[in-house]
Amino acid sequence: MKTISNCFIGCDKPVENSDLLIFGAPYDGTSSFRPGSRFAPDKIREASYGLETYSPDYNMDIEDLSIGDIGNVEFPFGVKDKVFEKIKNCTANLSKMNKKTLCLGGEHLITFPIIEVLNGAYDNLKLIHMDAHADMRDTYIGEKFSHATVLNNISELIGQENIYHYGIRSGTREEFNKIAKYNNLNIKHSELSEKIGDDPVYLTIDLDILDTSILPGTGTPEPGGFSFKELSELLFSFRGFNIVGADVVELAPDYDFTGASSIVAAKVVRNTLCTMLG
Amino acid sequence: MKTISNCFIGCDKPVENSDLLIFGAPYDGTSSFRPGSRFAPDKIREASYGLETYSPDYNMDIEDLSIGDIGNVEFPFGVKDKVFEKIKNCTANLSKMNKKTLCLGGEHLITFPIIEVLNGAYDNLKLIHMDAHADMRDTYIGEKFSHATVLNNISELIGQENIYHYGIRSGTREEFNKIAKYNNLNIKHSELSEKIGDDPVYLTIDLDILDTSILPGTGTPEPGGFSFKELSELLFSFRGFNIVGADVVELAPDYDFTGASSIVAAKVVRNTLCTMLG
Amino acid sequence: MKTISNCFIGCDKPVENSDLLIFGAPYDGTSSFRPGSRFAPDKIREASYGLETYSPDYNMDIEDLSIGDIGNVEFPFGVKDKVFEKIKNCTANLSKMNKKTLCLGGEHLITFPIIEVLNGAYDNLKLIHMDAHADMRDTYIGEKFSHATVLNNISELIGQENIYHYGIRSGTREEFNKIAKYNNLNIKHSELSEKIGDDPVYLTIDLDILDTSILPGTGTPEPGGFSFKELSELLFSFRGFNIVGADVVELAPDYDFTGASSIVAAKVVRNTLCTMLG
Amino acid sequence: MKTISNCFIGCDKPVENSDLLIFGAPYDGTSSFRPGSRFAPDKIREASYGLETYSPDYNMDIEDLSIGDIGNVEFPFGVKDKVFEKIKNCTANLSKMNKKTLCLGGEHLITFPIIEVLNGAYDNLKLIHMDAHADMRDTYIGEKFSHATVLNNISELIGQENIYHYGIRSGTREEFNKIAKYNNLNIKHSELSEKIGDDPVYLTIDLDILDTSILPGTGTPEPGGFSFKELSELLFSFRGFNIVGADVVELAPDYDFTGASSIVAAKVVRNTLCTMLG
Amino acid sequence: MKTISNCFIGCDKPVENSDLLIFGAPYDGTSSFRPGSRFAPDKIREASYGLETYSPDYNMDIEDLSIGDIGNVEFPFGVKDKVFEKIKNCTANLSKMNKKTLCLGGEHLITFPIIEVLNGAYDNLKLIHMDAHADMRDTYIGEKFSHATVLNNISELIGQENIYHYGIRSGTREEFNKIAKYNNLNIKHSELSEKIGDDPVYLTIDLDILDTSILPGTGTPEPGGFSFKELSELLFSFRGFNIVGADVVELAPDYDFTGASSIVAAKVVRNTLCTMLG
Amino acid sequence: MKTISNCFIGCDKPVENSDLLIFGAPYDGTSSFRPGSRFAPDKIREASYGLETYSPDYNMDIEDLSIGDIGNVEFPFGVKDKVFEKIKNCTANLSKMNKKTLCLGGEHLITFPIIEVLNGAYDNLKLIHMDAHADMRDTYIGEKFSHATVLNNISELIGQENIYHYGIRSGTREEFNKIAKYNNLNIKHSELSEKIGDDPVYLTIDLDILDTSILPGTGTPEPGGFSFKELSELLFSFRGFNIVGADVVELAPDYDFTGASSIVAAKVVRNTLCTMLG
Repeated sequence: MKTISNCFIGCDKPVENSDLLIFGAPYDGTSSFRPGSRFAPDKIREASYGLETYSPDYNMDIEDLSIGDIGNVEFPFGVKDKVFEKIKNCTANLSKMNKKTLCLGGEHLITFPIIEVLNGAYDNLKLIHMDAHADMRDTYIGEKFSHATVLNNISELIGQENIYHYGIRSGTREEFNKIAKYNNLNIKHSELSEKIGDDPVYLTIDLDILDTSILPGTGTPEPGGFSFKELSELLFSFRGFNIVGADVVELAPDYDFTGASSIVAAKVVRNTLCTMLG
Repeated sequence: MKTISNCFIGCDKPVENSDLLIFGAPYDGTSSFRPGSRFAPDKIREASYGLETYSPDYNMDIEDLSIGDIGNVEFPFGVKDKVFEKIKNCTANLSKMNKKTLCLGGEHLITFPIIEVLNGAYDNLKLIHMDAHADMRDTYIGEKFSHATVLNNISELIGQENIYHYGIRSGTREEFNKIAKYNNLNIKHSELSEKIGDDPVYLTIDLDILDTSILPGTGTPEPGGFSFKELSELLFSFRGFNIVGADVVELAPDYDFTGASSIVAAKVVRNTLCTMLG
Repeated sequence: MKTISNCFIGCDKPVENSDLLIFGAPYDGTSSFRPGSRFAPDKIREASYGLETYSPDYNMDIEDLSIGDIGNVEFPFGVKDKVFEKIKNCTANLSKMNKKTLCLGGEHLITFPIIEVLNGAYDNLKLIHMDAHADMRDTYIGEKFSHATVLNNISELIGQENIYHYGIRSGTREEFNKIAKYNNLNIKHSELSEKIGDDPVYLTIDLDILDTSILPGTGTPEPGGFSFKELSELLFSFRGFNIVGADVVELAPDYDFTGASSIVAAKVVRNTLCTMLG
Repeated sequence: MKTISNCFIGCDKPVENSDLLIFGAPYDGTSSFRPGSRFAPDKIREASYGLETYSPDYNMDIEDLSIGDIGNVEFPFGVKDKVFEKIKNCTANLSKMNKKTLCLGGEHLITFPIIEVLNGAYDNLKLIHMDAHADMRDTYIGEKFSHATVLNNISELIGQENIYHYGIRSGTREEFNKIAKYNNLNIKHSELSEKIGDDPVYLTIDLDILDTSILPGTGTPEPGGFSFKELSELLFSFRGFNIVGADVVELAPDYDFTGASSIVAAKVVRNTLCTMLG
Repeated sequence: MKTISNCFIGCDKPVENSDLLIFGAPYDGTSSFRPGSRFAPDKIREASYGLETYSPDYNMDIEDLSIGDIGNVEFPFGVKDKVFEKIKNCTANLSKMNKKTLCLGGEHLITFPIIEVLNGAYDNLKLIHMDAHADMRDTYIGEKFSHATVLNNISELIGQENIYHYGIRSGTREEFNKIAKYNNLNIKHSELSEKIGDDPVYLTIDLDILDTSILPGTGTPEPGGFSFKELSELLFSFRGFNIVGADVVELAPDYDFTGASSIVAAKVVRNTLCTMLG
Repeated sequence: MKTISNCFIGCDKPVENSDLLIFGAPYDGTSSFRPGSRFAPDKIREASYGLETYSPDYNMDIEDLSIGDIGNVEFPFGVKDKVFEKIKNCTANLSKMNKKTLCLGGEHLITFPIIEVLNGAYDNLKLIHMDAHADMRDTYIGEKFSHATVLNNISELIGQENIYHYGIRSGTREEFNKIAKYNNLNIKHSELSEKIGDDPVYLTIDLDILDTSILPGTGTPEPGGFSFKELSELLFSFRGFNIVGADVVELAPDYDFTGASSIVAAKVVRNTLCTMLG
């Protein structure tokens, strides 16, 4: 008997035996354009069964790694504070057990409560931010916490100089000016390696960094992005960093009529897992 | 030169000359199943141009009526209190000018702040509730205010005995027990007329009262509902009531691939306008 | 070897052996709302292979009838006069051979050139018009010949008193007033039979007579229409009339995502064939 | 933590405590028109979470019943014999434990191996067959076992006189002649009750018995079928029969763009469960 | 109150204050393959609100520029001469006021009446033609004026030697031979600059120059085209030319299920505006 | 009169006059993920009419070549042995007449019976295998013959050293180890030319070699593949080889909502024909 699978492909290890744990955060409450990233965690898991567990690029097999999947954080829609609290609790519990985490979003705002916890747990936390949008507004329609402000919120926690951006191609003039202050946009691997060293690193991957040709199924598609190969090579280059957590956000499955965007997201997750444990 | 139209078809009268004003409330923050009713107000307006302004059933023409359309209330996503406040302000302003209102939702929760205002403005307010779902839960995933509790919230304001339900076919045993106390489900026109008399009436139309065959484009489709003709006849039977306000909620345009659900919604709005001013 | 089929299911008789010939008129040049009925003739043929040739209602099998399918009239898009000329030539050729015809539209305007020819070929031609829309405007956006005026154009040829309407539920007040003059809307079978007698009859079926629940794939969907069974019973009631021609128009396959509208159209065609030769 | 659910809503009892067990048979190998019913079992389970467990019609709650869900039978595609064998094994195991079964298809052919087993387990087995198509061909494209022959195959096992058909509206003249011999098409409840008495009954529900307006997402849509209410009333009328097994087949989720067909299928399953245990 | 926007994002200046005016020409009457570019002008405006007004590539903000949007030219469908006349009137009016124009098509044929006017208004007009298809046929299905002949029509007005083609990858042997005569296909920027000098330039962008991966939503998709970045770089290279007018044609929104094609089109428009006024 | 076309565009030569014959093999019986490649042969033919017969890259026109199209092999679904037998008969008949063949799949398994025949007809047959997946499993869910094993099956016929793979990016570790033995993955043209020499060559093109951005409409999309241009250049490089047969497999039209995947498939077929006869 085969039943519907609860976990990302190959990530079926018990919590106690796992080095890394996947959890979903199906929140899309501040999405201003096209909602529905709430459906992404389960859809990514489902789509993962169209892939192999083996990656020829990494020469690694997910089944050989110690990864579990604890399902989704559950919360009521429409109440941002409770959502933050639940995500923080989940992250804190895993962090206390010394587990690495990979969170399946949800919208980009879910990165904030995770970083709040990890910033307390690790010294000198660095963030690698892959995205089409700067997300560096001070406020958005009068709100301080939003998918459009999340990187600004995080920069107040860990310092903007500790954030390295890749793929940003959309924002206001003010956002681009803010980013320009630190020269941390699309820097080369050698420079990145030097800056990061052995410090703990968190990867946040807003899937709209990809071009709309390869990932139309997202809340705010922005033409002119990375090809799948370009993102894969970028992720591959992060092997060897001390990556303590990651998230993959902003898949909107209801706009993914062919199912291809979900498969792309699942392969990004698979490659991120290999990078984290490779 | 023809430009994109701002208003529901034929509803282009200035505010001061209007007896009735349309406004949109594009909020879907507590939707638990399929979001996107935020897109409904603009989509309903757009789809209305596929209809005639003349209704042969009512022998009335929208263009002959004094109706304006003031656009949508604007609010940040993810902050329920501010949404309530903005909808209340808008309703209060129109109410002070003695205008009737028709609100294009949005999810069903938007009815609550409207009733809060109208309940203060009118004595003995009655509610006619058309819906597939009871929406009579006390709380939903721990929250008191939600699309699944909204009728319960309203019953605390105006008294459950003043609510008349049509079309309810889904709920928990507790919700059906609650409703059964007052014998107000699917009552005949003669009984309804007697109970309502000349009291002010508010109509709330959750479009999922319709069968999923005619309206698949909604957040929580429930098979076994009204045909379009059945709903039209019900609405037609309300002519002559003292209707002071109405709303049409829960169209989810992103699941309406053929565009037919949006046209259905627009025709329900047209018929509701005729009922209110006929 | 099986190849793509050229003909409506079971309608593979040579022209000389056929009592009735099918042809397509893939014109949608005046469609004002949603174009694409140009794709209908081929799509209806394709969808017909999902049906049986046998109809239990009629106890007739299409394969037992003498019907051929001569394909589509070909014309350049954007030149209405040439389209009319080509459709007239085709109809005239078949009429001279004493063949009955069934035309697969295309938009409703294609009925006009057919009637022009048949009105010359037959005395006392009667028209049975099944439609959601009156199509009785004098002009439409300044044009005399349009899908929205076609019944008015035809009434000038054969006299409005010879047109019997079924299903009309949308139009301007003027159009409904025009129709009301002759009391020919939705009349009972006995009255229709008396009026028609043995006169030659033409059936024009705008598929939007059907409710949008059963036929969303059309240019101008209008909620509140016939169920499939209601239309089937109406068509069945026309057996025994002297039907010399028919058309089935306004399927818009690109809005028929599930394919169901095309199958509905094909079954309407099958039933129309049985009615014509039954 | 909430995880992807493995079971139909509310059907989470352990096998040993269950009176009835659900299993899926995701086979669509002989589908000749539109494949993909293989995806139905999991999709029906997923869609069931958009429904309540409580049915107001039955005044029963699925959660109060003793029902489990053992997932899907797994088999290689393209090898009919092995598929039959696996379904027979599964059915036999459950039958030996005296469990009632409800199978989620898959195409209609999956009913045959189930009946093979149950016909051995029960005397005087009766079949109630709900379907748009007769499925009574002797062979189909040269094959004896196919979705188009399955009722003929079953009639050889249990006798055609023990099969009661509802909703058949498509078939060849030969198939309708076969059925006509036994006068078992759409018979009234009183006659059905008399014929069945206390004998064990199996219900097979091909979802295309429903009209294409309410269920476009199926392999071979056939216009002119039952409304959801008509099917619900038919199912409701079977309460009190000694129903030992049932199946719900031929949902094709990939043609169900709005998701409504899957919800319809799930509600049919919920109502069937209530009928079986009511 | 926010209402449905009438204008392309940020292009809200009054006519008298504008250097450049946007207008729509929603004509698709000669489309031979997939119609629906009539819906493009309004869809491009709507999709533009998913973009920022600021372009980091140009370091320009649309809101800082003097651009207005006067809506769509209105005309009856199916009458090519009237369409031409209306587009010419609109272009002539704007030209007399010394405004630059950007027209949102519609099909490619709408370029012809615009060029007819501008060729009278400017000496030595040059055309830069971006397209997948040569559009250089003499006639198409017997018609001289068609989307498939429009460049040939224009070459008779301004001389083929003044047309510079980019991206052409589909045509007949005859069309490619015609183009080959002037060596004006995909020429380098330096050569183009030399040929154009200070002469007035018109840009016509058939969006199908883009690869079908990035722009599936068009009438005649042709695989093997430009990536979004390649087209963006080409457009960027035209800064400094004396560009007096432009058009962006052939988006077919009804085939753009994910909405991504419309966003691509809107970003092409934004970049074209920056090129014209940069 | 124009009728639905039976043949790939321009491939209308009689069998006796043809050097190359196209046939379809609409089999998808072992598809494990998303079925529906059965619809591909007819859809590719239909989509081909959106292309020109002339290829500027090859400077060849399909209409000038001697190519016929004999339609599809017909077989019952669900019986793999009969499918193999019918494909073998068809291939053998054409081979005896010394015709080259191009087969439109269908799933990848259809290559096996073709190679069985051609391996008997030609000495030293070489295979060029373009694919995302290795298809080199020994068995798949217990079956020896499957879309996932087909290259392994073929390697047992012609020797793995005679198979040259391009584009493989997904498989198990075992499959990649198998392939690695012969160093035949993505080898350069010069090396390929040397190995092949004048030997007879068969091309098998699994369309999922293409990136999911350009071909989402396939059974098992795998991100990170070839662009259309890269595949076109690879195919172009095979001119001059002694190509005796080819197939193009695994288009799944039901997941190709925009129609672009089918057009891509048709252009791959057109280019393959030019390569074979160039």
